[in-house]
Amino acid sequence: MRISELSRRSGVPNATIKYYLREGLLPPGRATAATQAEYDETHLRRLRLIRALTGARGLSVASAKHVLDAMTAHRTDLHRLLGIAFGIRPPAAGTPEEGTDPGADPEAAALIDAMGWSVSEHNPARRTIDETLRTLRSLDIEYGWEALLPYAELAERTARHDLDSLEATADPLEKAERAVLLTFLLEPALTALRRLAQENESAARHGGGHPPA
Amino acid sequence: MRISELSRRSGVPNATIKYYLREGLLPPGRATAATQAEYDETHLRRLRLIRALTGARGLSVASAKHVLDAMTAHRTDLHRLLGIAFGIRPPAAGTPEEGTDPGADPEAAALIDAMGWSVSEHNPARRTIDETLRTLRSLDIEYGWEALLPYAELAERTARHDLDSLEATADPLEKAERAVLLTFLLEPALTALRRLAQENESAARHGGGHPPA
Repeated sequence: MRISELSRRSGVPNATIKYYLREGLLPPGRATAATQAEYDETHLRRLRLIRALTGARGLSVASAKHVLDAMTAHRTDLHRLLGIAFGIRPPAAGTPEEGTDPGADPEAAALIDAMGWSVSEHNPARRTIDETLRTLRSLDIEYGWEALLPYAELAERTARHDLDSLEATADPLEKAERAVLLTFLLEPALTALRRLAQENESAARHGGGHPPA
Repeated sequence: MRISELSRRSGVPNATIKYYLREGLLPPGRATAATQAEYDETHLRRLRLIRALTGARGLSVASAKHVLDAMTAHRTDLHRLLGIAFGIRPPAAGTPEEGTDPGADPEAAALIDAMGWSVSEHNPARRTIDETLRTLRSLDIEYGWEALLPYAELAERTARHDLDSLEATADPLEKAERAVLLTFLLEPALTALRRLAQENESAARHGGGHPPA
């Protein structure tokens, strides 16, 4: 297909596609004339993945290129590929996420150990756990990693559903695209579900005779 | 206690406390001289609640005052009080959250109905559900509200833990403060737990012989 059809089918403007071609995010098409090229389904899929990384995951174009290159290099290693897609592994060996320091997050480490989870030292979510608990304590709320255990068990089931919903997709890069979209775009919905469930639970415990006005 | 001790114990700067007094977020102390006043534990608790609303929930000072006034007015109705704290009910009757429109979010309504939840028409989380599903479909991902059902069941258990952790607190306004802090500050930690669990689940399914490098 010509670039105009690629634009129409992907919803990505012509000028943006040309920009991705210049920056090397999108491989060149098959030249059919001095100023024309043919694109195929692989270009369309790659555009969707770029859109997932720059949109849903919020990466810059330079970071997206770095991640795409790493995904392509590791396309036969699905665990590493998904780790890169989920943002839980650095795209290249030897480039740990900025500031990650094994052992720097002892509460996350204790929680992961208690759950028996297999999680790399580079997963930046470790730091979020320790930061959250420190913030709560700074506000005089006694809350240790043990209090997170029931939530960790629920997260384990959530992750199982997440991975289940990727099973139907066979192509590794398509699977990675779906992983990015479902992981990042579902976040606000999962938070919203908690809020809806909180209101329901509060109604059950404290609602008395109130109609849900 | 004097304002300086209130500042020391709350961690809120003197000038900020005076600002809250002027704006009516904090009730005046008991005057002991023309330029001096005594403050007590209720002021300390109120300051913590203000900090929770403006910090964790990210409200403006004006909105925090509106919410505080509503909480105080409804302090005997715990369900309404918690609804205001969680941000799922408008602080006053007749002032629905901007733009909420009963029936505008059919997918959230179908999900809530399927779960048998009691949720008010004003809960803004309804809209987040419909928006998320629309966004996924705009990216060619077929994903209906039924696909959220397993997540909704997990959210139900999450909310049960949330409400459980408030049971130990007896005073309604203290309960509301804890509800705000735990609801909003735990959000990044819950997202982080999902990410850790995703890596673990991916390792179990696709990790093969890899050590968690």
